Amino acid sequence: MTSFQLKDGAWQVEELPLADIATRFGTPTYVYSRSALENALAEYQQTLAAHPAGKDGLVCFSIKSNSNLAILNLFARMGAGFDIVSGDELQRALAAGADASKIVFSGVGKSASEMHQALEADIFCFNVESAPELERLNEIAVAMGKKAPISLRVNPNVDPKTHPYISTGLKEAKFGVPHDRARALYRRATSLPGITVTGIDCHIGSQLLDPSPFTEALERLLGLIDDLAADGIALGHLDLGGGLGINYRETDRQPTVQEYLNPILDRVNGRNLKIVVEPGRRLVGNTAVLLSRIEYLKEGEGKNFCIIDAAMNDLMRPALYEAWHEIRPVAARSAAAKTYDVVGPICESGDFLGLQRPLAVEAGDLLAISSAGAYGMAMSSNYNTRPRAAEVLVDGTEAHLIRRRETVAELYANEQLLPK
Amino acid sequence: MTSFQLKDGAWQVEELPLADIATRFGTPTYVYSRSALENALAEYQQTLAAHPAGKDGLVCFSIKSNSNLAILNLFARMGAGFDIVSGDELQRALAAGADASKIVFSGVGKSASEMHQALEADIFCFNVESAPELERLNEIAVAMGKKAPISLRVNPNVDPKTHPYISTGLKEAKFGVPHDRARALYRRATSLPGITVTGIDCHIGSQLLDPSPFTEALERLLGLIDDLAADGIALGHLDLGGGLGINYRETDRQPTVQEYLNPILDRVNGRNLKIVVEPGRRLVGNTAVLLSRIEYLKEGEGKNFCIIDAAMNDLMRPALYEAWHEIRPVAARSAAAKTYDVVGPICESGDFLGLQRPLAVEAGDLLAISSAGAYGMAMSSNYNTRPRAAEVLVDGTEAHLIRRRETVAELYANEQLLPK
Repeated sequence: MTSFQLKDGAWQVEELPLADIATRFGTPTYVYSRSALENALAEYQQTLAAHPAGKDGLVCFSIKSNSNLAILNLFARMGAGFDIVSGDELQRALAAGADASKIVFSGVGKSASEMHQALEADIFCFNVESAPELERLNEIAVAMGKKAPISLRVNPNVDPKTHPYISTGLKEAKFGVPHDRARALYRRATSLPGITVTGIDCHIGSQLLDPSPFTEALERLLGLIDDLAADGIALGHLDLGGGLGINYRETDRQPTVQEYLNPILDRVNGRNLKIVVEPGRRLVGNTAVLLSRIEYLKEGEGKNFCIIDAAMNDLMRPALYEAWHEIRPVAARSAAAKTYDVVGPICESGDFLGLQRPLAVEAGDLLAISSAGAYGMAMSSNYNTRPRAAEVLVDGTEAHLIRRRETVAELYANEQLLPK
Repeated sequence: MTSFQLKDGAWQVEELPLADIATRFGTPTYVYSRSALENALAEYQQTLAAHPAGKDGLVCFSIKSNSNLAILNLFARMGAGFDIVSGDELQRALAAGADASKIVFSGVGKSASEMHQALEADIFCFNVESAPELERLNEIAVAMGKKAPISLRVNPNVDPKTHPYISTGLKEAKFGVPHDRARALYRRATSLPGITVTGIDCHIGSQLLDPSPFTEALERLLGLIDDLAADGIALGHLDLGGGLGINYRETDRQPTVQEYLNPILDRVNGRNLKIVVEPGRRLVGNTAVLLSRIEYLKEGEGKNFCIIDAAMNDLMRPALYEAWHEIRPVAARSAAAKTYDVVGPICESGDFLGLQRPLAVEAGDLLAISSAGAYGMAMSSNYNTRPRAAEVLVDGTEAHLIRRRETVAELYANEQLLPK
């Protein structure tokens, strides 16, 4: 099934016209395609299954990119694991039916209570990011009479050539353990009674359209794995993190999952390492559009503005990362296009969704902001007291409301006036 | 009363040690001082009251900077009006006890239903930002049998020399009406049956530490007011927006409200114009700290990290605007300071609160992140499934929980799995 398609000049998600979804659920609304979600995960699973080194592989969806329970549940039903970065993401995963034995726990600031929760749940592995974290985890596991399975997140110091905010594997990053300190820390880990060393982990950054930094990072990890073997430390799994990019612009050329994974699988073949990957954006980014309606067209001085009912609080990426999202009218008009800055109603100049876009539109028209499935709803806020958008998942001709729109009363339900 | 003070080497808010607040309410928590809030508003009110041109003046707190009901209620009790930018901010203001006749409604994307709500409530004025907005407002008012009081937001094209995201009065901004088109649009407004022209408005930007762009903008508006008078259009009020800066760094020197307002009041004296101002940041920015606990100290390669339990989801300004907030240990240690990047647990490199800060601290210590009252909680999100912080307001020796911490169950209460 084609997940997003033009039919008679109007965009639809699977078999449902976006215009019908706007009428039924209002705007702004995130609209997902079930087939797009399932196809994205299947591409990973099939690539792993087709390779001798990948048969035992595990795909852990990175929840931080999109944490909607319905989406987690779809992935869990297909056998996916999950990459979590907080105790509350663990709770989300479990509420969505995740198998705890397929959960990896990443993050530089794991609190004692988060460790306790994850040990209680018997997760697959803690990706430990620092020496003090290792010590704390050991203490808590010992106190609980448990052994915490760990990998160290190793910082391979590979430049992923992406936005600095989402480059995470450089040696000056807050993440992970420097490559040249990892060996000593592994030795320390094996000496701790509450720790079981099970693997190794890295994550070099996000939105990589060139897969070569992944294989570069792999080489550094394999060298370390050999050093550890010489120390008598045998690892069971190799977690390569996430980071595979997606097409945001029509001119982008994302690598296939095969192009990304096969060289890795070829290289580790015969080593008896379970391969773990943590895709986030790649599994959800291109599975949704943010559907919005044009409130006003405004002619400024030397610039035109298309003011829509979605804003930076709904989709933060353009303001925060200067990110590009394709913006398309839901229904084509034959009029000539004009150039607009597509902006939201929020009172700051950073509130834009796209700059200098040619559009043939009128006030009241619908726009579809593409590639909105990752770091869209997950980063949304209530800035300007804007209730967060609804989320709808389309399955063929059916639309399911997977998160209803917030009400303003909910926004201040936890607030309380002073008594006097 | 001193709102934030050191006592025996430890920071307290009014008479309450921050350490006690952390024990009682946990971290991260926004902690406000009642006296700081009241003093900030009083400085405006007293400056206006002391000047013959300001006696009839109105201070409209800009809700988008901080929308907590308890804070709005405190200001409403002192007689403040409010500047809203959405229909839901109107609902917040009314829920907090605001007097609708002191509310101005700004924003470039007012929807039909928001206009309807505001007309129903009989607000003081709509700050109209475009020609199509004027037409829509007229239609709705006519349909309701009402007349909408309006000012036009005029774009004086004055450079406020602040961050581009919060510069709003340049001619290429999405906001307001270009200065040279305003006169014609005013004439159009007077011809519309649902519109009453009552004033004029501008807002040139935010966080201005030099007040001279305000007087520059004023001159342009006064010229326009004279032109309009020649057209037979007499205005009753002049709204100068907000934008007065605050001290973020210890080396900043914010102007006093007198230094900002008195030249304006002197200049308009005798013109019989009601002066309206819309301060946001200046009324709340320095009334709160974000209180956080250190989870880990981590030595990186050539860099040290202080990993705390607050993150970019709690305070977005450093990541979004490269904004500076002073970060102070709640209790002093005699050890020598080391230099740290102060970062949160969120899995991206943009998650920092302050870079390269000298701190004498140990894991478990509390930090106070200063100047956190404006655009702090208001821009916070649930990124990484992090429940939003608690908000506590201190009044002398008493602490009031004005917004309780979210629970993870609340975060996904509106979500729903697919049936099959």
